[in-house]
Amino acid sequence: MDKIAVAILGASGYTGAELVRMLLRHPRMHIKALTADRKAGSTMAEAFPQFYGFDLPRLVTIAEVDWRGIDLVFCALPHATTQAVLKDVPARIKIVDLSADFRLADPAAYEKWYGHPHAALDLQREAVYGITEFARDKVAKARLVANPGCYTTAGQLPVIPLLEAGAIDPDRIVIDAKSGVSGAGRAAKEANLFTEVSEGFHAYGVGHHRHMAELDQGFSAAAGRPVVASFTPHLLPQNRGIEATIYVDCVAGKTPRDLHDILAARFAGEEFVKVLPFGTVPHTRHVRGSNYVHMSVFADRQPGRAILLCVIDNLIKGASGQALQNANVMFGLPETMGVDQIALFP
Amino acid sequence: MDKIAVAILGASGYTGAELVRMLLRHPRMHIKALTADRKAGSTMAEAFPQFYGFDLPRLVTIAEVDWRGIDLVFCALPHATTQAVLKDVPARIKIVDLSADFRLADPAAYEKWYGHPHAALDLQREAVYGITEFARDKVAKARLVANPGCYTTAGQLPVIPLLEAGAIDPDRIVIDAKSGVSGAGRAAKEANLFTEVSEGFHAYGVGHHRHMAELDQGFSAAAGRPVVASFTPHLLPQNRGIEATIYVDCVAGKTPRDLHDILAARFAGEEFVKVLPFGTVPHTRHVRGSNYVHMSVFADRQPGRAILLCVIDNLIKGASGQALQNANVMFGLPETMGVDQIALFP
Amino acid sequence: MDKIAVAILGASGYTGAELVRMLLRHPRMHIKALTADRKAGSTMAEAFPQFYGFDLPRLVTIAEVDWRGIDLVFCALPHATTQAVLKDVPARIKIVDLSADFRLADPAAYEKWYGHPHAALDLQREAVYGITEFARDKVAKARLVANPGCYTTAGQLPVIPLLEAGAIDPDRIVIDAKSGVSGAGRAAKEANLFTEVSEGFHAYGVGHHRHMAELDQGFSAAAGRPVVASFTPHLLPQNRGIEATIYVDCVAGKTPRDLHDILAARFAGEEFVKVLPFGTVPHTRHVRGSNYVHMSVFADRQPGRAILLCVIDNLIKGASGQALQNANVMFGLPETMGVDQIALFP
Amino acid sequence: MDKIAVAILGASGYTGAELVRMLLRHPRMHIKALTADRKAGSTMAEAFPQFYGFDLPRLVTIAEVDWRGIDLVFCALPHATTQAVLKDVPARIKIVDLSADFRLADPAAYEKWYGHPHAALDLQREAVYGITEFARDKVAKARLVANPGCYTTAGQLPVIPLLEAGAIDPDRIVIDAKSGVSGAGRAAKEANLFTEVSEGFHAYGVGHHRHMAELDQGFSAAAGRPVVASFTPHLLPQNRGIEATIYVDCVAGKTPRDLHDILAARFAGEEFVKVLPFGTVPHTRHVRGSNYVHMSVFADRQPGRAILLCVIDNLIKGASGQALQNANVMFGLPETMGVDQIALFP
Repeated sequence: MDKIAVAILGASGYTGAELVRMLLRHPRMHIKALTADRKAGSTMAEAFPQFYGFDLPRLVTIAEVDWRGIDLVFCALPHATTQAVLKDVPARIKIVDLSADFRLADPAAYEKWYGHPHAALDLQREAVYGITEFARDKVAKARLVANPGCYTTAGQLPVIPLLEAGAIDPDRIVIDAKSGVSGAGRAAKEANLFTEVSEGFHAYGVGHHRHMAELDQGFSAAAGRPVVASFTPHLLPQNRGIEATIYVDCVAGKTPRDLHDILAARFAGEEFVKVLPFGTVPHTRHVRGSNYVHMSVFADRQPGRAILLCVIDNLIKGASGQALQNANVMFGLPETMGVDQIALFP
Repeated sequence: MDKIAVAILGASGYTGAELVRMLLRHPRMHIKALTADRKAGSTMAEAFPQFYGFDLPRLVTIAEVDWRGIDLVFCALPHATTQAVLKDVPARIKIVDLSADFRLADPAAYEKWYGHPHAALDLQREAVYGITEFARDKVAKARLVANPGCYTTAGQLPVIPLLEAGAIDPDRIVIDAKSGVSGAGRAAKEANLFTEVSEGFHAYGVGHHRHMAELDQGFSAAAGRPVVASFTPHLLPQNRGIEATIYVDCVAGKTPRDLHDILAARFAGEEFVKVLPFGTVPHTRHVRGSNYVHMSVFADRQPGRAILLCVIDNLIKGASGQALQNANVMFGLPETMGVDQIALFP
Repeated sequence: MDKIAVAILGASGYTGAELVRMLLRHPRMHIKALTADRKAGSTMAEAFPQFYGFDLPRLVTIAEVDWRGIDLVFCALPHATTQAVLKDVPARIKIVDLSADFRLADPAAYEKWYGHPHAALDLQREAVYGITEFARDKVAKARLVANPGCYTTAGQLPVIPLLEAGAIDPDRIVIDAKSGVSGAGRAAKEANLFTEVSEGFHAYGVGHHRHMAELDQGFSAAAGRPVVASFTPHLLPQNRGIEATIYVDCVAGKTPRDLHDILAARFAGEEFVKVLPFGTVPHTRHVRGSNYVHMSVFADRQPGRAILLCVIDNLIKGASGQALQNANVMFGLPETMGVDQIALFP
Repeated sequence: MDKIAVAILGASGYTGAELVRMLLRHPRMHIKALTADRKAGSTMAEAFPQFYGFDLPRLVTIAEVDWRGIDLVFCALPHATTQAVLKDVPARIKIVDLSADFRLADPAAYEKWYGHPHAALDLQREAVYGITEFARDKVAKARLVANPGCYTTAGQLPVIPLLEAGAIDPDRIVIDAKSGVSGAGRAAKEANLFTEVSEGFHAYGVGHHRHMAELDQGFSAAAGRPVVASFTPHLLPQNRGIEATIYVDCVAGKTPRDLHDILAARFAGEEFVKVLPFGTVPHTRHVRGSNYVHMSVFADRQPGRAILLCVIDNLIKGASGQALQNANVMFGLPETMGVDQIALFP
């Protein structure tokens, strides 16, 4: 049986490299084209020396891609550049888009948060927002999957089942989230130099980070009414990992243990989502390099309040791993195929 | 004029080493005795090679200390061992205790959080809890200062002025705090190995960390009624620094900007506490190696809510720096003497 | 076809965890027993939470292992304890030993470097020293493979082909090697605390590290006469990776480019050893989490001298990966089976 | 007595910030002007928030500096831009230049290593190359001091006394050096991103790093004949610190202990250079944040060979600390004034 022919647009960034790493060992997919506008002409091993000696196509510009042989596109381009590019991809090719361009279903919300009108509304209308565990059936039928953001994956996985169950107060959600530096991408910025980031910690985007729009969308749908959560991202001096510490109020009659049981039941059959025993602390390092999610629930000292903890690898479940998980679903393959590496610790 | 003769009990730990570092350059204090029960007989340079070549007394056991020549004791012993030791220190010697043993004024609270009755109630009664900026006058007259915990310093400095001003809801305080590893001390534990801590992040003590008792005490006094805050500590993969992200609800009529103005006014004359411009993010790295505190206020997206950020160096303002600041006050010296190093960045 | 039943002795250390990680995804091997004397009774997920949710046997003592169902033993016990344990393993079971106990063929060398006579000389006589690329044929027939040390793998791979070719002066080899902290294992020691290791660098074992004996043995065999190299190990503030910078003198008539060509020819067919283009710097981060080796050759400024650079992941090619590579060879499986993960970067 | 008025050219880089940090606490110097061409108009606290609240002049362009009030210039500009700038500084102003522009006394060597003729030969002729401990008398009389490079300070301090004593073979010096990332400066480059540098290690500039020219110059002068050492720099995943592991051959009749004794005697009276007991390993972390140098000597296994270890903080003794040490000497102040902070560990 022929392998699925894959193009990765934006292969010289970290999410691109993660896709290449997994696809080189994927039994049913084959990398046919790799693009990187600024580094076009280079080999992938020049951009990422870990691929030295592997048989990979040379980096080209998007304009050079011959779409005829392609079955599947992973689009790992910067936000906003994606819309124009994807409009021109032939309609028979399936797409998983890792940018934020198609994540917001409401064009007005997109325009508010991104500062310009959406340039590909037709595509946006057919896009399926793909946290795989929540949208598996829609993803299976989708042509275009909008792959969720890293923070929003870590925030929505534990909260949405609780909102759907009506177990927590939608107006009292505080998400204090922390991410490794790889979430900032590979662009050369002073703020992301080793010397500026190591041995220190700080918040950023306080009160106005764009992932808020994704959280609002998901939480509001789950609660059946508008929800606005408090959300503060922070930068950790480490490469990979997102941790979300989430403070919630149980509704009357519900206890923190009830919240645990709701999550345990909701994710019981899921390979990638592990609900740890009540009161067990998850560490980002124990999901590093993997598509796994560890989450758990604690009772706060204050009666009626609970603390949810959730960890992912931002580049994998928060980006490329979930993208490949979604692609597997879109092509009817086993969902874990090529995505089931176990965490690398230490 | 004779220098003040200092003994440091527990000099082989990190807070002890920080005291030595600062005291070696202090114009009015002189290190007379250093104790370290397990390493007694060693030189300080064997315990901490950064002191190679400096003229320092050899490490001895506490029993070997000749109290006659000592004017001031810094006690950096593990929690619970301190009470017995300090009972026997001659009454004319002033003491700054860096342990938790004398921080809780209420013996019942001590017993609840530490699991055993307090063994030196007389001393506890005279102890002054010393966040210098809040307790300067009492510290000046104290014989025994209970030096505050690191998390509680970072949590109380921004919150107490707001509670005293009646500007925030005491029942809606969430403190999400993160600390560098040096806060865990120098004991050889698997959990604190480089391999276990680096490149990862996790919460700990969720729902039951002992610093909660200190926060309760300070917040309740400031609010004039019992306050129980949500507080979650986390471990950062870095040596130094605490960051507290604090979510509060403004009372009716108060805005986040009002909170900023209250803090700016409260700390206007303080050398070590800098209230950054409204909406400016403080970084732990910018107070590293210093006694300075940077804090700031942000508006949350949700009307009426604010986010406070506060950073300190946990070993300095969170321990040894504040201890020396307090000792300066106790002896009528300029408060900044020997404590005014500027942050080391990068 | 039945899977090969595997026991891992010493599963609660880092090399044990790496074996578990790879074996859980190995198509032809199955984990049947896991031992950890101090943590016996615990689950593997309690020792290493990255395995939460995986189906693994509980940790037991070595005495509890039922050898009847076991085909293959990986022994990841501390040096010196191994000899006594392996003497009692039934003779039909194949063994890959990751300790240093069977690496030195000469009992006198063992006694000199380890300070006591060898306790299992019969076993030592049959042990095959297994840098797979150099000893593949012997490994295929071995019952007991002594898996090489991490530093010695990084040192021997580039140097032995040059000594065998007579291309470098055996008396002028300087190996300056640097290792990540995971090489020190998981024992709780003050010297390996995060606070003691991060943000700093130092040499250790200068002039007397035990891996010297392994280097001597390999180099002397390759040169056909006694060789004693200068070798200095250093500790890097990172989890994984060994880099060896090796200074050599070319023999008359040979140039640095000749050295490159010898290595390129020697490793041409090897999956795991990549000789980079002449003058290309290898990084430890580009082999992190993988069994791959990157090496390269540079001309020194001084005519006739060359600099060899070689990087590996100390826990994989330097320990568990090479162990599994050897086990595959011992059982006639494809050498790369279950060991071919690609490096995780960033 | 009036304070010495200081201008720092290039204050927005790391060496500039280190100068500001030390000068703010210097009892006899006062910062009068700070330049930063790209960030002109900003406050220093905007460039480096650790200075928030300190009274400092605003950043200006070099053209805006009013030289009339300036007594001393620290020039921390990029290499090659310095020559043109310093030509126009009034002759009565003393200068410490931290760039490489005036370090090579031989114009031909400069042109060879930097690729263009020197543009300020008059200035170069009067420049004094200032490793303070070796050039104190000349520095005292100099108008322009060329502050040494970081690697070359760590390499020359232990080697030059041995060459001068004729105790080692000048043709057999191998310097394997490792530096923290701050040595690369604050320019936004992909290669220096946190994600590219952390958790990994690599060599660079192998066979052709510019600091070689400085080493050649110093070693040749000390040996009284041309010396070319092998030198390989590497990048450490840490902010600060250089470690040099130096392999040397003793001349006939000299032992490694003799080398130790030569160094101990040579640096006996020096505040900043500590020769550790024979066979004691120095760590970069134990000089972090300080102007101190720790060095030591070991016997290699090979008779007649020795290993020298030397550590410094690259930004302090390797740059700004030594610059201020030199400036103190130039103005007849105590050499340690404002430079004597003790290392910050952990």
